Amino acid sequence: MTASDAAETVRVELGDRSYDILIGPGLLGDAGRHVSTVLPGIRAAIVTDDNVAQHHLETVRQSLADAGIETAEIVVPAGEPSKSFATLQEVVSRILDARLERGDAVIALGGGVIGDLAGFAAAIVRRGMNFVQMPTTLLAQVDSSVGGKTGINAPHGKNLVGAFYQPRLVLADTAALDTLPAREFRAGYAEVVKYGLIDRPDFFAWLEGNWPAIRDGGPERIRAIAESCRAKADVVARDEREAGDRALLNLGHTFGHALEAAAKYDPAILVHGEGVAIGMVLAHEFSARMNLASPDDARRVAAHLENAGLPTNLDGMKTHLRDADSMLGFIRQDKKVTRGALNFILTRGVGRSFIAKDVPESEVRGFLVDKIGQ
Amino acid sequence: MTASDAAETVRVELGDRSYDILIGPGLLGDAGRHVSTVLPGIRAAIVTDDNVAQHHLETVRQSLADAGIETAEIVVPAGEPSKSFATLQEVVSRILDARLERGDAVIALGGGVIGDLAGFAAAIVRRGMNFVQMPTTLLAQVDSSVGGKTGINAPHGKNLVGAFYQPRLVLADTAALDTLPAREFRAGYAEVVKYGLIDRPDFFAWLEGNWPAIRDGGPERIRAIAESCRAKADVVARDEREAGDRALLNLGHTFGHALEAAAKYDPAILVHGEGVAIGMVLAHEFSARMNLASPDDARRVAAHLENAGLPTNLDGMKTHLRDADSMLGFIRQDKKVTRGALNFILTRGVGRSFIAKDVPESEVRGFLVDKIGQ
Ligand SMILES: NC(=O)c1ccc[n+]([C@@H]2O[C@H](COP(=O)([O-])OP(=O)(O)OC[C@H]3O[C@@H](n4cnc5c(N)ncnc54)[C@H](O)[C@@H]3O)[C@@H](O)[C@H]2O)c1
Ligand SMILES: NC(=O)c1ccc[n+]([C@@H]2O[C@H](COP(=O)([O-])OP(=O)(O)OC[C@H]3O[C@@H](n4cnc5c(N)ncnc54)[C@H](O)[C@@H]3O)[C@@H](O)[C@H]2O)c1
Ligand SMILES: [Zn+2]
Ligand SMILES: [Zn+2]
Repeated sequence: MTASDAAETVRVELGDRSYDILIGPGLLGDAGRHVSTVLPGIRAAIVTDDNVAQHHLETVRQSLADAGIETAEIVVPAGEPSKSFATLQEVVSRILDARLERGDAVIALGGGVIGDLAGFAAAIVRRGMNFVQMPTTLLAQVDSSVGGKTGINAPHGKNLVGAFYQPRLVLADTAALDTLPAREFRAGYAEVVKYGLIDRPDFFAWLEGNWPAIRDGGPERIRAIAESCRAKADVVARDEREAGDRALLNLGHTFGHALEAAAKYDPAILVHGEGVAIGMVLAHEFSARMNLASPDDARRVAAHLENAGLPTNLDGMKTHLRDADSMLGFIRQDKKVTRGALNFILTRGVGRSFIAKDVPESEVRGFLVDKIGQ
Repeated sequence: MTASDAAETVRVELGDRSYDILIGPGLLGDAGRHVSTVLPGIRAAIVTDDNVAQHHLETVRQSLADAGIETAEIVVPAGEPSKSFATLQEVVSRILDARLERGDAVIALGGGVIGDLAGFAAAIVRRGMNFVQMPTTLLAQVDSSVGGKTGINAPHGKNLVGAFYQPRLVLADTAALDTLPAREFRAGYAEVVKYGLIDRPDFFAWLEGNWPAIRDGGPERIRAIAESCRAKADVVARDEREAGDRALLNLGHTFGHALEAAAKYDPAILVHGEGVAIGMVLAHEFSARMNLASPDDARRVAAHLENAGLPTNLDGMKTHLRDADSMLGFIRQDKKVTRGALNFILTRGVGRSFIAKDVPESEVRGFLVDKIGQ
């Protein structure tokens, strides 16, 4: 397989840092050939977590070895706590132990946690090594592996330390998702739906008809992932360093982050994509309340997300949200509130989202009182 | 004082990341005005070390306060060990404690250690905050604060973790050097001489006549620093990410680094600039031995460095260098040796340095045997 015989290729246009996202089944088993095409003659460190290692590490290691690429394997514990200074230092140290040079590569094999952690390590070892993403969750394939944000968490908050650092190549093996727990797959799907809701109404309509096929694999899954990568790559090419338009990608995320915080970031209660699913419905309902969109749109969005097995209302969060003001408090923590106004992603309908500056906090509060109670 | 009323201004041309280096006496006392011209309305964290804090922190803090810039002060222990993961994490954490945003600034007030550490923190907090350099050693004013290299050390070696990250402004207060220990001043001067030896023979000749005035302060010091900044800025503008030409800045550093390693990086035995001084003389002598330059040039270089109070031969290192092969071992650790050949900066005479690829290791060994013995 070469770049052209992957099922789909999405080019991320960033001048001399442009790169390809290859999308299709079986790419991990052909990783060696793809990597050595883009980065001939290198050695590599594969960073992964202990779940992903069980399913996919040997495939990748063997394929790289067959292509003559010597590897060091760095396995960290699965889960968000690995996005820490301590684990970063450990990964950096292991990369240096392997005596890799600037021209060698760090490969992230895993979900968004591994991509963010390994990408940051690649950005800072020897002031920047080559970096390759091999995302193995749906969220990582459609979101975190595209766009070059890398980083770790601080006690002060998520993703507060990091770098903008682009990979040289992304291999999104759509068959690798077969080993992903169903709940993680659904959570990633919320981000797929998001791209439709931002500015691709036809894509959203297509998703409404094709969720079961996407879930079960096959060409629809590939197409959904490719279309999502294109959507994100478009936004990133317009706004690499998040000065403007990139904010659209936060559709559903203001409410979503508040819900994650209310759930104390406990994945047993709520994972990120679930928060985003509820958040997107709330954003549509709030837009309807502001007379920007029709309530029918909010109902349509909720119906599809529910059909995909995602939560779409606050019912499951009742024990964690005392009242409107507690939710508002979490929103304030996530966002800067300037003179009683918030930035928000609102919508005029499916696929017609926009950045609203100066949304009065009182409007948000009124909405939340209706939803949660005084 | 505005940019134009600093004694000298050197512009570093890097497209939309271009910035000014202001050079002159008393700039720290006017820091507030200069910073708020370039970065209006910000807050700032001042990172410094406990030596520099004693002499200059209050001046800077007060000047910033007068300009309405609120500051947090972060004081770390003086010395190379502060370029560590542990201190980096501490600095990052303190910046976040102060609730600084991406648009706020990290200010490095100190020598190269502080510049490298604080610059790296600025590069990674919120994926990149504004950064201002206020170098207070001669080495930092003429070398480390120019060019955008930032970073920390790893147990595996120096400067192995970091980022290329440019400041928005550099304030080189030439009077702040009056509190610098004489030995540190001389060590920084070795790097000034280096710029003459690379490709500015007239500058070298001017230095030969003006060392005492440079040491004692006044307009000659300002001119020497400005000319050095211009020299480094030129090289950096041509080669920001160190792909080619920037290697010329390593004149004297191959031998110098080997000597620092031989001295176990103990500053009581040898500081970096002293290693560079000896290294530059050796580079000229080695070039003469290869019939590239006249031995008179080597003698001329040694005479000036000696005049400035710098070591110029291996006499002081005898107890630390057993024989030619022990020195060669340290050179091998610093450089990649490919098929028995080394990259080296050699010279055809004063101000005529060049990058020599494939210098036979056997030639280097022969030279060292003559110097140190079998
Ligand atoms: N950089 C960005 O632009 C960006 C964007 C969105 C999210 N993120 C980050 O991404 C992270 C979330 O990513 P995620 O949802 O992929 O989480 P994750 O990396 O924790 O993966 C989720 C779980 O799935 C497991 N897993 C991964 N691939 C598997 C596979 N193929 N088979 C079986 N198990 C597998 C993992 O071990 C983990 O337990 C967060 O830290 C978030 O901040 C980053
Ligand atoms: N980033 C680069 O491009 C680059 C280039 C060269 C060197 N460096 C780095 O720079 C570091 C060396 O820098 P340095 O020589 O400035 O060392 P340094 O920062 O350790 O300063 C030397 C000593 O002088 C003290 N000091 C600083 N300013 C003073 C003042 N005005 N008055 C009194 N005391 C003062 C410091 O506290 C310290 O004890 C090394 O870590 C080296 O790797 C970086
Ligand atoms: Zn998200
Ligand atoms: Zn130096």
